[in-house]
Amino acid sequence: MSAMPQSQDAPMLLRSDEAGVTTLTLNRPLQFNSLSRAMLEALIAEIDVISKDDSVRVVILAGEGKAFCAGHDLKEMRGNYNLAFQQDLFRLCGKFMVKLTEMPQPVIARIHGIATAAGCQLVSMCDLAVAADVARFAVSGINVGLFCATPSVGLSRNMGRKQAFEMLVTGDFIDAHEAQRRGLINRVVPLEQLDEEVARLAASIVAKSPVAIGMGKQMFYRQLEMGLEAAYQMAAETMACNMMAEDAAEGIDAFVGKRKPVWKGR
Amino acid sequence: MSAMPQSQDAPMLLRSDEAGVTTLTLNRPLQFNSLSRAMLEALIAEIDVISKDDSVRVVILAGEGKAFCAGHDLKEMRGNYNLAFQQDLFRLCGKFMVKLTEMPQPVIARIHGIATAAGCQLVSMCDLAVAADVARFAVSGINVGLFCATPSVGLSRNMGRKQAFEMLVTGDFIDAHEAQRRGLINRVVPLEQLDEEVARLAASIVAKSPVAIGMGKQMFYRQLEMGLEAAYQMAAETMACNMMAEDAAEGIDAFVGKRKPVWKGR
Amino acid sequence: MSAMPQSQDAPMLLRSDEAGVTTLTLNRPLQFNSLSRAMLEALIAEIDVISKDDSVRVVILAGEGKAFCAGHDLKEMRGNYNLAFQQDLFRLCGKFMVKLTEMPQPVIARIHGIATAAGCQLVSMCDLAVAADVARFAVSGINVGLFCATPSVGLSRNMGRKQAFEMLVTGDFIDAHEAQRRGLINRVVPLEQLDEEVARLAASIVAKSPVAIGMGKQMFYRQLEMGLEAAYQMAAETMACNMMAEDAAEGIDAFVGKRKPVWKGR
Repeated sequence: MSAMPQSQDAPMLLRSDEAGVTTLTLNRPLQFNSLSRAMLEALIAEIDVISKDDSVRVVILAGEGKAFCAGHDLKEMRGNYNLAFQQDLFRLCGKFMVKLTEMPQPVIARIHGIATAAGCQLVSMCDLAVAADVARFAVSGINVGLFCATPSVGLSRNMGRKQAFEMLVTGDFIDAHEAQRRGLINRVVPLEQLDEEVARLAASIVAKSPVAIGMGKQMFYRQLEMGLEAAYQMAAETMACNMMAEDAAEGIDAFVGKRKPVWKGR
Repeated sequence: MSAMPQSQDAPMLLRSDEAGVTTLTLNRPLQFNSLSRAMLEALIAEIDVISKDDSVRVVILAGEGKAFCAGHDLKEMRGNYNLAFQQDLFRLCGKFMVKLTEMPQPVIARIHGIATAAGCQLVSMCDLAVAADVARFAVSGINVGLFCATPSVGLSRNMGRKQAFEMLVTGDFIDAHEAQRRGLINRVVPLEQLDEEVARLAASIVAKSPVAIGMGKQMFYRQLEMGLEAAYQMAAETMACNMMAEDAAEGIDAFVGKRKPVWKGR
Repeated sequence: MSAMPQSQDAPMLLRSDEAGVTTLTLNRPLQFNSLSRAMLEALIAEIDVISKDDSVRVVILAGEGKAFCAGHDLKEMRGNYNLAFQQDLFRLCGKFMVKLTEMPQPVIARIHGIATAAGCQLVSMCDLAVAADVARFAVSGINVGLFCATPSVGLSRNMGRKQAFEMLVTGDFIDAHEAQRRGLINRVVPLEQLDEEVARLAASIVAKSPVAIGMGKQMFYRQLEMGLEAAYQMAAETMACNMMAEDAAEGIDAFVGKRKPVWKGR
């Protein structure tokens, strides 16, 4: 991928596939990869395809140019100044964000620059996040009179409520180390090691059983919304089913036999 | 405000207003600002008035004397030793605490000394909290045979459950830095910088659109109690409505035009 | 207790009682204290007895041998390779874990070595946890093709979702200091101070009113699953009832009279 400005016909969303790892790159660098209606639609379409594709084992979400993602496209929003457009836009955005948690493959955010407003939300809704130490995070809508309501959903499920609230009402940035301390991201590395670190995390997931990962991820987000007893009931069923899948038998036999397991796939 | 002991006719709750910032000061220094029935009623009455007052943009909750707040008034509780009084008192307390999250203006706790039992709960239920480094926090009811049940509601929504549980069964204090690490407070500063830091945070909020802050705060606490999909549905509606408010149009136009926005107010 | 390998007739679960503190020790050191069906049944039976025993004020959960607990017994699971066995096993496990939160006495995990898979879950479901600095934690089922679904329930209620998810899909270990930072454990000490630190925490709880601790613990986990208003309603009732128990009157009178309280017991 080149760092050059996109032309009119460059796709706004790039996809590359390598050894089970699919990278989706937001490609509107001049607009700081803002999530226009068309960008959200492209992301949803791609995710729907990937969800059914057994050859994809993990997804990396990245951004082209200086920013990771600067949120929604304010010019588009202002240029379509009617309630129906806004409702449609934010519903679409919410639909996309929820889909990230519903797809069977883990999604890793690769954050090399700023992630603001819905860009910060995007980080919060990915399963995992690795950032360069130069990355910064804010939910800055409040600076233009727009409380980051949809970003607050993901943000407040990644860090303490007081810390999330402060970011929402001040619009202030936090740096990558603070984001890690709070739980918004998993790992921080120097920019020049970002791709290596993301690749390492992705490879660790690719080495696992896709059946186990897929069942596990979907159970994980559902149990988070349940009371303790209901969560355990569902998790127990998932675990029993997972145990009866070929990969678990293979995994345990390989472990006992001190050899490498060979997974069957989903 | 003076640090002198209150007389019989000094009000137990002081109010001062300056440039959109209302400071409510618990004024029972000799009783370590304990939350007697009358104090809770005074707080509720004041908050009900402030909630409807557009000129108030942010509220600071402070304490007169040595302590921020040492919880309920044990002598009053022991002097009214019947179930009805206790039920009434704790229901009133819960009502007050929930109101803090329901009012449109953000509430900042200014903690200069100890915050114990319901005083620690008060910190946990404010939207934001700034503490002096000499402040300390405990839910110490267990030391007198009284598990801090109502304080546990706020505490366990500000920090990890094991950390909250430890405080509840040991009654041990944590210092301000530990409180910040756990999420109970936002910022820690030397005592002599406390007012400056609180003022800075308050000013940052006053500079924002009141419409956006008000819609946002009320949505924030509601979405925390919802599943992911329902939370996104509500947040999307809030954001669309916020976008159609005058302040968002003004904010975006000012941003694009590289000028300072002028908010309309609630 | 000796560190020698168990014989055929050594009980798999050891119990010792001293001054209100009951220690339950998993005693299958050669199997790294794995939670076989029989072990889970022994734990449930013991906990049911302890729950009704007023002389027990706090429970310590420990492990014999090198490991704290390495999770389920993979050989047993593989040797009973049918869905009914697995469902039964994981339901039993979930039942045990929930019981830990329902019993009136606080449970402290004493972690001196590795805690993996359901062993890590066990740590997460205890009310409190103290670890040696050499202890390590992982949810490593994914390495054998088995997503740690039931462990994820406890884990994701002890730390941020991204941090929990990373552990679940990578199977990677975290050390004791990281476990403490994330909220999975309360305290970390050098191995040689582990028993002393656990004893200190246990003694602090034994010194409190058993009525207050019992009412408080049961309310604590229930309110965690409620919305704010319902949580406050229940907590207010609990607090009023607690206040009318003899121990609260005694505790407050002792506090006012500057003497040590004498608790009545449950």
